[in-house]
Amino acid sequence: MRFEVLVEVSLRPGVADPQGQTIERSLPTLGFAGVHGVRVGKAIRFELEALDEPAARAEIADMCDRFLSNPVIEDTRVTVTATDPAR
Amino acid sequence: MRFEVLVEVSLRPGVADPQGQTIERSLPTLGFAGVHGVRVGKAIRFELEALDEPAARAEIADMCDRFLSNPVIEDTRVTVTATDPAR
Repeated sequence: MRFEVLVEVSLRPGVADPQGQTIERSLPTLGFAGVHGVRVGKAIRFELEALDEPAARAEIADMCDRFLSNPVIEDTRVTVTATDPAR
Repeated sequence: MRFEVLVEVSLRPGVADPQGQTIERSLPTLGFAGVHGVRVGKAIRFELEALDEPAARAEIADMCDRFLSNPVIEDTRVTVTATDPAR
């Protein structure tokens, strides 16, 4: 089966995010009000061939821990969508 | 009303993504097979105070065009979730 995968890698709560802070400080000067708590992370998308969804999720969790994120300071959110296998 | 916002900024199809290519080349050497089409983008999360959802979406679209992305080479996907206004 083929899956579309989105891995969102974000800094854990409490870890300083200077990029997000810079965006948050800049927005009011550009006329955008009411924005708080800006956090910038990575969005990694890919296609994955796997036997079934549990196998896909297990492989992705392993990839996240070993390669795509730093589990000490980063959290990951994984979204898996099955796509037409004939595509 | 208060909204939780996720803006995913990704390179448009056809724009070279060296970071994604590097990840794709590295994964097989780490034992992860079946991964294709890796693309790396940004995931920007924040909270927004706005009158209602259409107002929130209009402000976010404007922010994306003017500040958060480069519309020439990047696409944005916006997810807006209303949160409890009493929170």
